[in-house]
Amino acid sequence: MIIGIGAGDPDHLTIQAAKAIAATDVFFIIDKGEEKHDLVRLRHHLIEEHGRPPYRIVEARDPERDRTAPAYAAAVEDWRARRADLYHRMIDDELADGQTGAFLVWGDPGVYDSTLSILDRLPFTYEVIPGISSISALTARHRTTLTRVGRPVHITTGRRLAEQGPTADDILVMLDARCAFEGLNDYHIYWGAYLGTPDEILVEGPVAEVADRIRDLRAQARARKGWIMDTYLLRRLR
Amino acid sequence: MIIGIGAGDPDHLTIQAAKAIAATDVFFIIDKGEEKHDLVRLRHHLIEEHGRPPYRIVEARDPERDRTAPAYAAAVEDWRARRADLYHRMIDDELADGQTGAFLVWGDPGVYDSTLSILDRLPFTYEVIPGISSISALTARHRTTLTRVGRPVHITTGRRLAEQGPTADDILVMLDARCAFEGLNDYHIYWGAYLGTPDEILVEGPVAEVADRIRDLRAQARARKGWIMDTYLLRRLR
Repeated sequence: MIIGIGAGDPDHLTIQAAKAIAATDVFFIIDKGEEKHDLVRLRHHLIEEHGRPPYRIVEARDPERDRTAPAYAAAVEDWRARRADLYHRMIDDELADGQTGAFLVWGDPGVYDSTLSILDRLPFTYEVIPGISSISALTARHRTTLTRVGRPVHITTGRRLAEQGPTADDILVMLDARCAFEGLNDYHIYWGAYLGTPDEILVEGPVAEVADRIRDLRAQARARKGWIMDTYLLRRLR
Repeated sequence: MIIGIGAGDPDHLTIQAAKAIAATDVFFIIDKGEEKHDLVRLRHHLIEEHGRPPYRIVEARDPERDRTAPAYAAAVEDWRARRADLYHRMIDDELADGQTGAFLVWGDPGVYDSTLSILDRLPFTYEVIPGISSISALTARHRTTLTRVGRPVHITTGRRLAEQGPTADDILVMLDARCAFEGLNDYHIYWGAYLGTPDEILVEGPVAEVADRIRDLRAQARARKGWIMDTYLLRRLR
């Protein structure tokens, strides 16, 4: 099973996900390096809280991904192939016939997460349990909506926004390592980092007024914690 | 509070939403006409399951909305103003000082729902609890993702898709009353209706092959139940 566990708040877990955790024999936890230990810790907490013994936890180290490669898609593809091998071996080695394994996925498994496309290559059947995405968490915390009445919204990555510029009046941006919103002074921004966690930071305002503050807060938080996960909604000013 | 209750499955409820329901003194339930009684029934079920007595349920009939008006946004605006009046009166009349009221919202309050923009006009403070959107439910049930690696997705309405044609390789369509996907033969479609409920219907395949089947299933289901709520993801074929 691929279980969405929500955007960071343990209470984002759905009843369906809690039941799925309770039905799991083996949890596979992929460590993405020590700088993201908080993420691993939340998974352990949810397993302790909702798992039904006897269960086992199998941890593995994520294959390194070349984040400096100019061919982003190719680098991701290579990393996925190595990850698929790892997952295949883990499942073969650790799961007995009739047992249920689970991957706990941050946010929603359908939103910029690779677990599903990896398992899709492997000869196993699986179910997907939806989770609260960081998109839903962001808009809820800002008490705004992702979509306005009858209007579209574009969801994209920081890399694409930087390359193509804004493509719509409403744009939700994820995976932005470089503050691609800077200079988009026609827009209002709803920004959030570490959503749903005690470290949550929220900033909202016209980009022209708050961009510097977000850049500073982002750099400080990243230095302090060693990693950052943030997302934002851009809405064109009238 | 505005509480997202998920896309139809009572187990989509998050722990956060269950706690919010338990903390509510007065639930406001807006009846959208008898054809959507299932939606009202789920709300009552969740209140019985998670509410902590004493609580009260206040029901009101939704103001009629002119769905035939050509000026869609204006018609919605008029309907929202009348709805805001209704909400204002209900809250004033039914909620004592220090009490907490709640609106239970289908799916996620940030996705094509008007409750938030209505409460935003009123002199009350409120919190928003995110929920599993029909988008997350759809992609999970189809074991696919909303976003592909490094690529954007456009979320739009059936009306816009019909007017503008496809605007991206990946398009998530909601509120489509007229099968706007028909003829988009460059696309694969992941379609779902009544997601998360016992009436759930899923169809997936190239539009050219499955469009007729979806149209027929949709018409039959609508005739049988009196209403339909569906959504779909279009992904351009290579």
